[in-house]
Amino acid sequence: MVQAIEWKSDHVKIIDQTELPIRTVYSEITTIEQIFEAIQKLRVRGAPLIGISAAYGLYLGMRDVQAASPDDFFVELDKKIDYLSKSRPTAVNLFWALQRIKDQLQAVTDQSTNDLKERLLRLAIELHEDDFQRCKQMGEHGLEVIPDGARILTHCNTGALATGGIGTALGVIYTAHQAGKNITVYADETRPLLQGARLTMWELMQAGIPSKLLCDNMAASLMQQKMVDLVILGSDRIAANGAVANKIGTYGVAILAKHHNVPFYVAAPLSTVDLDAASGDDIPIENRASHEVSKVFQQCQIAPDDADCWNPAFDVTPPDLVTGIITEKGILYPPYTENIRNAFDK
Amino acid sequence: MVQAIEWKSDHVKIIDQTELPIRTVYSEITTIEQIFEAIQKLRVRGAPLIGISAAYGLYLGMRDVQAASPDDFFVELDKKIDYLSKSRPTAVNLFWALQRIKDQLQAVTDQSTNDLKERLLRLAIELHEDDFQRCKQMGEHGLEVIPDGARILTHCNTGALATGGIGTALGVIYTAHQAGKNITVYADETRPLLQGARLTMWELMQAGIPSKLLCDNMAASLMQQKMVDLVILGSDRIAANGAVANKIGTYGVAILAKHHNVPFYVAAPLSTVDLDAASGDDIPIENRASHEVSKVFQQCQIAPDDADCWNPAFDVTPPDLVTGIITEKGILYPPYTENIRNAFDK
Repeated sequence: MVQAIEWKSDHVKIIDQTELPIRTVYSEITTIEQIFEAIQKLRVRGAPLIGISAAYGLYLGMRDVQAASPDDFFVELDKKIDYLSKSRPTAVNLFWALQRIKDQLQAVTDQSTNDLKERLLRLAIELHEDDFQRCKQMGEHGLEVIPDGARILTHCNTGALATGGIGTALGVIYTAHQAGKNITVYADETRPLLQGARLTMWELMQAGIPSKLLCDNMAASLMQQKMVDLVILGSDRIAANGAVANKIGTYGVAILAKHHNVPFYVAAPLSTVDLDAASGDDIPIENRASHEVSKVFQQCQIAPDDADCWNPAFDVTPPDLVTGIITEKGILYPPYTENIRNAFDK
Repeated sequence: MVQAIEWKSDHVKIIDQTELPIRTVYSEITTIEQIFEAIQKLRVRGAPLIGISAAYGLYLGMRDVQAASPDDFFVELDKKIDYLSKSRPTAVNLFWALQRIKDQLQAVTDQSTNDLKERLLRLAIELHEDDFQRCKQMGEHGLEVIPDGARILTHCNTGALATGGIGTALGVIYTAHQAGKNITVYADETRPLLQGARLTMWELMQAGIPSKLLCDNMAASLMQQKMVDLVILGSDRIAANGAVANKIGTYGVAILAKHHNVPFYVAAPLSTVDLDAASGDDIPIENRASHEVSKVFQQCQIAPDDADCWNPAFDVTPPDLVTGIITEKGILYPPYTENIRNAFDK
């Protein structure tokens, strides 16, 4: 199984995702500055994986710090957290992971700075391990919605390259494949940044799962020809009412699925749910630069110079288009407001 | 106004569309072999433009032929038609244009070979002129569905670069702009071959029409945000019941438009209607090579080596998703079977 990140007793080993799918290059990372650069340059990407990388980076940045006292240690820690937070300013999961580790570190008092360093590493490994387990649990719960012989459409990359485990939506697909279900996967290329073409296809081909790539605008025709049994994809943020913010293009796929009576599943850990967002209206959508659309891979110019592009990074799918949400605690169905609340209370 | 092709007393002048949108390069064409190469290499593309180019090419190929008799002339003509037909084997309009010219040439008997050559040129110019007029008429009829201030979504390229005039769907947009309606156009990039990004954006920017480019998978979100007042796009073939075959992605846009109550118009001359096709089931869909998807511009590899791609060139939109069909004889509305038949009888 592909591992996007591994802790190797005194350093981090990553797959450099900017080299995919042309080459598989591993990098050994020994400093916080290298982690910063890897996150910033998208050598590691995907919300959970960014959080895990940052956590290891924080340890790498602190392990040689000479602090006279725990207080001094925490002053340094805050500086390193500030530093890492600037690697990807819009990545909520990055802040969440670093804050979680800081809170956990502070929860135990009377520690030496050496104890703190050791504990910091353990917390980073634990964050990684938690994510690994959550992916596994989502995969197992998801099995029940994947019939034998299923032809599955997915969007963006939600696999081992985005998480610390087998992934969310792609994790369900891996689990179904390993369970011997004879599945075929159709992967949307996912413009503008082509995570589907570059990363999902690479993962599927590595795993030997029958798969085909298609342009995003071909999904409707695929469904019209009854070649899709279900859609399964991930989420960046889920509102309390079940509205799903995810990679641009998700909402369109949801409408097409509804039109063709194809079930539409979202796989995401409960940490994706933002209970402060009552509905999709409370989820801000980042608009990104024109050149991401007009230059493929920042190389191949596909539009006139100075073409103005509309480039939202995400869209929001309303809950009535979502058949079910596969979480580590089971599959949630409508009514989402109630069933999401119940899942948190479990 | 951009002209994709012009007859210049003894040669043809084209815009080399393979150089767009980076450079605007004109080519002077003096031989049938150069026309063949221009069609084959997509220097000229778009169904009507291919037909017009082939017609001029036929004249260029025949003008220096030494034929002892009209019969000899027609033997040579058939050879040249066969030759040109191989430049783009799936382009129905190419065969149609060449056959039309041959039929018209044969309709008048007792001509010298010099008369035939002259008449051949006149027929090519007439084909061009007819297309020009049809575009103009579609533009004028289309005006009534474009409100002042309209924000219009379009797909693929249906403009001056695809026809012998201002275009079909884009022709309606040009006409509305020239009529002083304050329109904004959103152009789908139209993967895999990116005609929207490369050609439509170039045309719109040349004409000074406010326009934005978006990836195909962003159209749903654009409609969700109520930023689209109508969709207008072209067609490659229309069945007798009003089913519309067009560039892949059209059917998906039609479903999204229906979901958001956005009117969905097709602009196409009546010659696009294939009365032998009773419904969309009778229109064959060409599946094209994987590398068109996996290599952008045959250069930029976006997927793993040997990734298998699903790459249909067209899709079929059923008539119930089509608000109206803008033709040179007016706008046709449902019931299409009846109203298409009536339009032919006008």
